[in-house]
Amino acid sequence: MKGFRSSSTRLHVRPGDLDSLGHVNNARALEYLEQGRWDWLRHNGLALKCAILPVVVRVEADYQGQLLWGEVEVETALHEDSAETFRATFTQSVRQAGSARIAVRATVRLAFIDAASGQLCPVEDYLAAASPQAFAP
Amino acid sequence: MKGFRSSSTRLHVRPGDLDSLGHVNNARALEYLEQGRWDWLRHNGLALKCAILPVVVRVEADYQGQLLWGEVEVETALHEDSAETFRATFTQSVRQAGSARIAVRATVRLAFIDAASGQLCPVEDYLAAASPQAFAP
Amino acid sequence: MKGFRSSSTRLHVRPGDLDSLGHVNNARALEYLEQGRWDWLRHNGLALKCAILPVVVRVEADYQGQLLWGEVEVETALHEDSAETFRATFTQSVRQAGSARIAVRATVRLAFIDAASGQLCPVEDYLAAASPQAFAP
Amino acid sequence: MKGFRSSSTRLHVRPGDLDSLGHVNNARALEYLEQGRWDWLRHNGLALKCAILPVVVRVEADYQGQLLWGEVEVETALHEDSAETFRATFTQSVRQAGSARIAVRATVRLAFIDAASGQLCPVEDYLAAASPQAFAP
Repeated sequence: MKGFRSSSTRLHVRPGDLDSLGHVNNARALEYLEQGRWDWLRHNGLALKCAILPVVVRVEADYQGQLLWGEVEVETALHEDSAETFRATFTQSVRQAGSARIAVRATVRLAFIDAASGQLCPVEDYLAAASPQAFAP
Repeated sequence: MKGFRSSSTRLHVRPGDLDSLGHVNNARALEYLEQGRWDWLRHNGLALKCAILPVVVRVEADYQGQLLWGEVEVETALHEDSAETFRATFTQSVRQAGSARIAVRATVRLAFIDAASGQLCPVEDYLAAASPQAFAP
Repeated sequence: MKGFRSSSTRLHVRPGDLDSLGHVNNARALEYLEQGRWDWLRHNGLALKCAILPVVVRVEADYQGQLLWGEVEVETALHEDSAETFRATFTQSVRQAGSARIAVRATVRLAFIDAASGQLCPVEDYLAAASPQAFAP
Repeated sequence: MKGFRSSSTRLHVRPGDLDSLGHVNNARALEYLEQGRWDWLRHNGLALKCAILPVVVRVEADYQGQLLWGEVEVETALHEDSAETFRATFTQSVRQAGSARIAVRATVRLAFIDAASGQLCPVEDYLAAASPQAFAP
């Protein structure tokens, strides 16, 4: 999986994301990462809905700082690893908008499931199904 | 409660806000309204945290159309009603960014609680506590 | 819509449901109501997934007391109103498990959408699609 | 940190936890883990609120199977590691109630922050603050 561009996504922290100290809850921060990945797909011209669906199979997240109410920025990049044929790995980070300091650093691994059969698919099948040229004659 | 300005808040629909049809869930839409009210407070120079806290006591929401993944816009206005001394009522709406059609229309009533005593307070007490001049000598 | 039984649903408040004061957030409380309605459907032998889908078109909720971390109980009853043919109205309440005092009282109105056509359907069509006998020869 | 008992927590999947396929969303599954840890604290007689607060600093989660609407069971155990003085590590798992197959397996590391000073504290300070005997004369 080469030739893909990293994406940067801005989104708003919501009051309901905050814990009793006014810091973003660790589970809610994963929603920011998910938003970042959907945005990455759109940014790279891949369909959000197609016959093969990406599913999260592993998350590693380090919470290195607090996020507060306001805007955050999520950076999402595909980790290019030629050894993987059934998985794709993203490296992601979240920081408060305007801050240089990363608050959450994550590695997220996806697998690809054929919606009809429920079977695991290689990344190439997903790309074929999700790319615009998939609809070409 | 006069002299306050309406606010317009833009925020992103997250993948986790969507139901099985790809439409924003009715409970999640209330998070958009809450974001709108926090933004209204900031827009009008009122502190988000002070000794008296606004709490939601009634919500009426009409879901008139579907919201999809993308951006939404929340309009928040204070309903000026001189008869209320212990409540404040907001009228709010949510629509997909760029669309003229309102998807959710809501009326939200707030009461004000003294954090220390747990007692209900009149709106004036809240305004005194939340306004910048509250800190003036 | 007669002959349906009310249902009582117990569920757990989660840490992420709580605001900075340790009280259940108003948007999260609507998730409890949704859980109550799904449980009501199951309790009355109606399919959760069928060709016609219930969608929330109006919520009225009165927040009369605080809910804390622990268990809550949701009561869900169909409001029988022979005048409605395209809508169904539920009356619901939420209270802390073991408490007699209702914390949230709500009226929730649903409409029914044909998933294929996107058209509004009468309640009878939904019941025909969601009932076990719908699968009978 | 020895002498603590593992805990088993049952909770309900909510409709809003589900993605478009009817499977529990990966971020929402972290709320189940959080519920498990709060329950573990209660189960071991530790206060949920005290002067020192546990914060999540790292999550590793493997999503090995799908969770559906219904009940889930969360197992939470403290990983006893005498080498850690400023961290505590939990191993957790989630499975559909009644199923032997683990759907989510996680390792969650916590640090402890003094709420007043914002400083990191050793685990022992947290235990002293959160234990019932902390209130003894």
